[in-house]
Amino acid sequence: MTQTASELHHTELKHTMNMLFAQARAAARALALAGSEQKQAALEAAAAALERDCARVLAANARDVAFAQGKGLSPAMLDRLRLDEGRVAGVVESLRNVAAQPDPVGEVMEAWERPSGLSIRRVRTPIGVVGVIYESRPNVTADAGALCLKSGNAAILRGGSESLHSSQAIHAALAEGLRAAGLPERAIQLIPTRDRAAVGEMLAAQGLIDVIVPRGGRSLVSRVQSEARVPVFSHLDGINHVYVHAAADPVKAQAVVANSKTRRTGICGAAECLLMDRESFAAQGAALVSALQACGTEIRGDRHFQTLPGVRPAEPDDFGCEFLDNIIAARVVSGLSEALTHIAHYGSGHTECIVTEDAAAADRFAREVDAAIIMHNASTQFADGGEFGMGAEIGIATGKLHARGPVGARELTSFKYLVQGEGTVRP
Amino acid sequence: MTQTASELHHTELKHTMNMLFAQARAAARALALAGSEQKQAALEAAAAALERDCARVLAANARDVAFAQGKGLSPAMLDRLRLDEGRVAGVVESLRNVAAQPDPVGEVMEAWERPSGLSIRRVRTPIGVVGVIYESRPNVTADAGALCLKSGNAAILRGGSESLHSSQAIHAALAEGLRAAGLPERAIQLIPTRDRAAVGEMLAAQGLIDVIVPRGGRSLVSRVQSEARVPVFSHLDGINHVYVHAAADPVKAQAVVANSKTRRTGICGAAECLLMDRESFAAQGAALVSALQACGTEIRGDRHFQTLPGVRPAEPDDFGCEFLDNIIAARVVSGLSEALTHIAHYGSGHTECIVTEDAAAADRFAREVDAAIIMHNASTQFADGGEFGMGAEIGIATGKLHARGPVGARELTSFKYLVQGEGTVRP
Repeated sequence: MTQTASELHHTELKHTMNMLFAQARAAARALALAGSEQKQAALEAAAAALERDCARVLAANARDVAFAQGKGLSPAMLDRLRLDEGRVAGVVESLRNVAAQPDPVGEVMEAWERPSGLSIRRVRTPIGVVGVIYESRPNVTADAGALCLKSGNAAILRGGSESLHSSQAIHAALAEGLRAAGLPERAIQLIPTRDRAAVGEMLAAQGLIDVIVPRGGRSLVSRVQSEARVPVFSHLDGINHVYVHAAADPVKAQAVVANSKTRRTGICGAAECLLMDRESFAAQGAALVSALQACGTEIRGDRHFQTLPGVRPAEPDDFGCEFLDNIIAARVVSGLSEALTHIAHYGSGHTECIVTEDAAAADRFAREVDAAIIMHNASTQFADGGEFGMGAEIGIATGKLHARGPVGARELTSFKYLVQGEGTVRP
Repeated sequence: MTQTASELHHTELKHTMNMLFAQARAAARALALAGSEQKQAALEAAAAALERDCARVLAANARDVAFAQGKGLSPAMLDRLRLDEGRVAGVVESLRNVAAQPDPVGEVMEAWERPSGLSIRRVRTPIGVVGVIYESRPNVTADAGALCLKSGNAAILRGGSESLHSSQAIHAALAEGLRAAGLPERAIQLIPTRDRAAVGEMLAAQGLIDVIVPRGGRSLVSRVQSEARVPVFSHLDGINHVYVHAAADPVKAQAVVANSKTRRTGICGAAECLLMDRESFAAQGAALVSALQACGTEIRGDRHFQTLPGVRPAEPDDFGCEFLDNIIAARVVSGLSEALTHIAHYGSGHTECIVTEDAAAADRFAREVDAAIIMHNASTQFADGGEFGMGAEIGIATGKLHARGPVGARELTSFKYLVQGEGTVRP
């Protein structure tokens, strides 16, 4: 029996991937036992190597950019792919930030005694093997690899095909750091092929990969969510609302709304919809709209907002839309209950914000809104692992199991129970 | 176009199940906002109703037992199905235990401040809708329903078909408790049909059920694990080892080994394999084997153990076997490293035990064994939510995401971040 070229190719890929998975598992066992200082040393050595090899990384990146331009990548995608000295310095700094974070592994989460005489501790452990699938953003190679290493997990990284050389150059620095610290180099592996079937192998790797984190746009994340047989930490959309309650402070409202929408419009923490109570709309709707317009924001409003100059009528689809652009849908609501109903219907469970001086209203909003992050008088753009104090994030999750919100090193851990007796038996 | 009877039947089942899922979601929203006292009142009213209706429950159970006998159920299965006054009293007590537990919902898990001026709290929330699939053990109806209610989750319960009437009678008491406390009766739903296709609908209910807990034997759990598109908290096997280290105290060793194996042989926390260091085998192997034999245990040993009277030779398959019976595999190892290798190879990540007076050996065992529960000088039979102080358990999980070890009310929660600013914006 002869195999076709494509079958042969697929057999080879499967073989390569299975070897990679097995190496990751072996590395994970060693990494789980690595000391905090050893892991920190590896991250610091990787940062130093990357700093030293900046020119080599930029040369690799130039090859990727040329290839991507040839493929006709969009300007936004090209911008994400492109590195310069400042961006490499940012990656180096991010490695050092993760190095400086506390080691979550071994942390005693809780300890208690039982009437039986047992003493029980719940202690953090690594999860095992983490798969990360991302687009052509070379810096994710460093962030994801570093967070996995910090949390004692082996990482299998699959970057966008256009960033292969840049990712390989960054990965070389991570591998050098691991070697320098006496840790297995295979603790962070980068998939060496552009073949898209490798992603399919990762998604099907039940028992071989313990969790997958997709990081990228809607089409990547939705493919991962629908095909994966491995657990996934992810979010599909960030359809985030800012609700200006009747008892809002106008200065805070204007600051929070403008920052939530316009600081950066293309990130998942950006606000996509403004809700205002009648009272706050009457008092400051016009001022708020002018402030947004001064930042270049296009407002798509309901009939109330349409009475203001320059506001375009909202189509029904504009509510619940993730614009990822300088556009905001806007609606007047009759009060907290209607705002909650609107958010329950259109929100994506990512980040929701209330602006109010009324503590009871804020409490009810916090209790009733079902989202990973609830902001009170603070910009939705704070939805970020760095801003939460996690040093970095591997992604943001909107699922409700294990990880929710920004996913840092600690969210990449599991735990075990250590039970101590004195020859204690159960009656 | 006409539908065949089977297609029509399937359409009807799908319709019934979808209605049930929608009702669960609606009930979950209400339940998430229920106060601690209200949930406690519901559980206490359910306990009182069950106590009052004991005779009715026993009559329903008699119908189930007659049906199951007609089907030729095994004596062990019949025993699990059968209720008597004592067992109903146990179920009532268990409802009261869960009622008395602290409410996990709303608990502030952590709180911290950021240099940006934000204050962040991580607060427990319910998960949403929990599906429980179990065999013909009517008491699981009460335990699972109660833990879901305590944790603010709506429950969809699917018990074994032989226990349908018993489960319905117990469920009626739960529903009465919910009504009495002003909570939606649909917060705990029992699937009203014996149709096995209902299980398939649950396993496929992505987005409708948030997590499924299978509780039963290997065939049930492995079907759920392989078919489910919904996350699952489960364990397939409890292949638990007791390792008697060279520095073991002989009295503790004998107590722990005998209790781990023989207290109850059919539960997942029972020990299935005994490992002894050469030194401890020489010092007390014979005494330990005699003690087990006095409890009726069959020992299947390696060549060392075979030198002792009554020990049968172990087949290779006996290591890594979950006997769930009064049988134990036994092997002499050359020390801690070989014991760790044996456990890494044969263990199922459930519960592993070391008996030793050497703190360094115990620490290394705790650090290196990758299992949900690690016992030091304590019986493996303590692997139980009640013994851990959780009031009850809905199951034990060996997965590493979200829940690991005994799953009680707190393990059935998620969390959200509440972020407080003062009009704070991100630079």
